[in-house]
Amino acid sequence: MDFYDLIAKRRMVRNFTDEPVSDEAIDRILDAARRGPSAGFTQGQDFIVVTDAAMKRQLAEFCGESFYTESGFDPFISKAPVLIVPCTNENAYHRRYQEADKTDDSGEEIEWPVPYWFMDAGHAVMLLLLAVVHENLAAGFAGFQDLPAARAALGIPAEVTPVGVIPIGHPAPDKRSPSLKRGRRTDHIHRERW
Amino acid sequence: MDFYDLIAKRRMVRNFTDEPVSDEAIDRILDAARRGPSAGFTQGQDFIVVTDAAMKRQLAEFCGESFYTESGFDPFISKAPVLIVPCTNENAYHRRYQEADKTDDSGEEIEWPVPYWFMDAGHAVMLLLLAVVHENLAAGFAGFQDLPAARAALGIPAEVTPVGVIPIGHPAPDKRSPSLKRGRRTDHIHRERW
Repeated sequence: MDFYDLIAKRRMVRNFTDEPVSDEAIDRILDAARRGPSAGFTQGQDFIVVTDAAMKRQLAEFCGESFYTESGFDPFISKAPVLIVPCTNENAYHRRYQEADKTDDSGEEIEWPVPYWFMDAGHAVMLLLLAVVHENLAAGFAGFQDLPAARAALGIPAEVTPVGVIPIGHPAPDKRSPSLKRGRRTDHIHRERW
Repeated sequence: MDFYDLIAKRRMVRNFTDEPVSDEAIDRILDAARRGPSAGFTQGQDFIVVTDAAMKRQLAEFCGESFYTESGFDPFISKAPVLIVPCTNENAYHRRYQEADKTDDSGEEIEWPVPYWFMDAGHAVMLLLLAVVHENLAAGFAGFQDLPAARAALGIPAEVTPVGVIPIGHPAPDKRSPSLKRGRRTDHIHRERW
């Protein structure tokens, strides 16, 4: 598929069939996810693959899935065949930028103009979501309403932030997000200056 | 090109030929950049296209280009045919999540577990960088050492953060980043829990 067709086809899906997802597809998707750029090549992103039914129910609860289902959505987190939890580690960036090739003339770590650990997480997640479409699968996304509970349940170190849950499966008919009625912006380009 | 080949081919390039970049290619790249997911479909990302030589030199200075050239790199920011400055607007997300369909039962905006405005900027930048490769062009990335100066020079509103500069052109032989000797991580996957 042409790259521009691939990105046009990608959308957030909030319902999946019972059909299982192959381990090989998940492996290829996770291999894609690690190929994004990162500040100082820190690569501070990790991914937790969850297929255990009880853990999926717990993570769904920490994302407030009932808020979705009360609004007419399917239980797209707890019922997805596979969940991937992308994580990012701010301290890995600080450690990287305290290495000799990254410190300033006085040996100090830079002042960060932007939290690139979150932007780099976006790079990784975008690659992951595109790979899902390339594999003829579908994915959604939900943030954690209770992030500390998710960290505890998954045994994630305190310095690591799980940035959300990506349910993956074969797409089923779903309720579309009401946010889509906002339409896609076309005024995002500025020429020479804002 | 197969999607997995596309992402394997993508790398940060730090030198460009003098060959100009077509306006049509830049338009397609910018159209790709707006197709990423965003929290609440906020789409709080904007892009400034800079081709003016004097402004390119200024932005290169605000990125500390001399630090690169003193280390043996080419002047890949000031000399690139086109610069794109991706921006993100945190307040656009707060405004979106103060709308009726996003507030909690007491009418309050959510507490943000993650600054999704930076993650969504990562989604947009990843799409942009892949579109560049799809167009047989090359791109680099540099963060601002002096972000307020960049904001002032480009007339960017105070609530908007320019997250860096993406030089784009036809690739020329370049010095590779010393960070690459770190190698790409292969221990990024965790099964069922961390």
